[in-house]
Amino acid sequence: MSQNIYDDPTFFAGYSRLRRSIEGLDGAAEWPALRAMLPDMAGLKVVDLGCGMGWFCRWAREAGAAAVLGLDLSARMLERARAATSDPAIVYATADLANLDLPPGAFDLAYSSLAFHYVADGARLYQAVARCLAPGGRLVFSTEHPIYTAPTRPSWAKGEDGETIWPLNRYQMEGPRVTDWLAPGVIKHHRTVATTVNLLIAAGFVIDRIEEFRPSPDEVVAQPALSVELARPMFLLVCAHRH
Amino acid sequence: MSQNIYDDPTFFAGYSRLRRSIEGLDGAAEWPALRAMLPDMAGLKVVDLGCGMGWFCRWAREAGAAAVLGLDLSARMLERARAATSDPAIVYATADLANLDLPPGAFDLAYSSLAFHYVADGARLYQAVARCLAPGGRLVFSTEHPIYTAPTRPSWAKGEDGETIWPLNRYQMEGPRVTDWLAPGVIKHHRTVATTVNLLIAAGFVIDRIEEFRPSPDEVVAQPALSVELARPMFLLVCAHRH
Repeated sequence: MSQNIYDDPTFFAGYSRLRRSIEGLDGAAEWPALRAMLPDMAGLKVVDLGCGMGWFCRWAREAGAAAVLGLDLSARMLERARAATSDPAIVYATADLANLDLPPGAFDLAYSSLAFHYVADGARLYQAVARCLAPGGRLVFSTEHPIYTAPTRPSWAKGEDGETIWPLNRYQMEGPRVTDWLAPGVIKHHRTVATTVNLLIAAGFVIDRIEEFRPSPDEVVAQPALSVELARPMFLLVCAHRH
Repeated sequence: MSQNIYDDPTFFAGYSRLRRSIEGLDGAAEWPALRAMLPDMAGLKVVDLGCGMGWFCRWAREAGAAAVLGLDLSARMLERARAATSDPAIVYATADLANLDLPPGAFDLAYSSLAFHYVADGARLYQAVARCLAPGGRLVFSTEHPIYTAPTRPSWAKGEDGETIWPLNRYQMEGPRVTDWLAPGVIKHHRTVATTVNLLIAAGFVIDRIEEFRPSPDEVVAQPALSVELARPMFLLVCAHRH
């Protein structure tokens, strides 16, 4: 079972104050890159794995999806999601991605934003996602980049010449990482880029594109605090399809 | 035109003293992982892009390849390679991978060991490699991992708690990197993992497997100096095939 940190009151209060919780998809710097990986949504059956407050589910319907299933482990998140729509073609349900079990071939698109790094068993997860997709169905997801999750001390530091560095270590040592983010003791699961790519291929996916998210020059001008992100990749974005 | 650092006398003298130059493939820690990506060599037409002293070309013939073309920019390397065999099915030729131009569909396997990071234009390179392969033909290569090539100061450092860290920065800033390795002023070209994967796909390749090389537990026991490599990925290994 995955940790349900989003139902922790301190975590949830902090998360609710993030730009992406208030402004939705447009408040997430990586959204344009993720959106560029999505197919034409018209008529698609969509599952959102870790749907949170349901911003993507509502966007998918506005973009023409026929039906959207939003899954999340957090009761607080699902409550927010349900309160934000009366669309009968959006259904929300409680699910732990660690035990994902959906009908075979039921969806054309599986989407997930920053949820897969909470799942310990990547092989099982990708197999379950592949199984729920129709042949040719697409998987588009973001996850914290393993360069971001790896270190003992995951915060900016100064190099010997005073340059800002990301103090990378433990990259090759896969497994849980416990960090303090919004609340103490948040558990993420570190997998290398190679492991993610190889597990996807082993589960029957063809890799179409990956992105190691970086802010665009325009975004750096608009938000100078983002310029430090040129030093490291923060998010890994993947677009793949089932055989 | 790529820099021809291997013909620099100081560089070549240093390179000739490396384990991989004296012992050949078995002197390279990543060789078992790379070899595992290779197909059955029997009857294959093979091109080795950056063949160096020809260790792989000779191995390929011993493993059953029908014919092997070894390409390198360095006259010193080609001289060593030619002196080490009289096999008429191995042909060596001078070539700059930056201008690679081979007959279309002429090869079943393109192989390259630690040479692609010397090539500035990755898109052109992968297109030229795809073109020289028969449909279904395979590309197997290693390159310095972008985590390894990225930093301003690419050497181990100490973190705030005294832990050994790799001081990552400039990961998202692609382009040339000038380092001192065996000789001053060695020019490598930094491309992110995402760029490498996406350029390969754009050139017509399907990604079969990637590895971010790490020493195995047995290798760390045999060579304790390798344990530091668990902190970062040093080499990127890719196995792909043409549509």
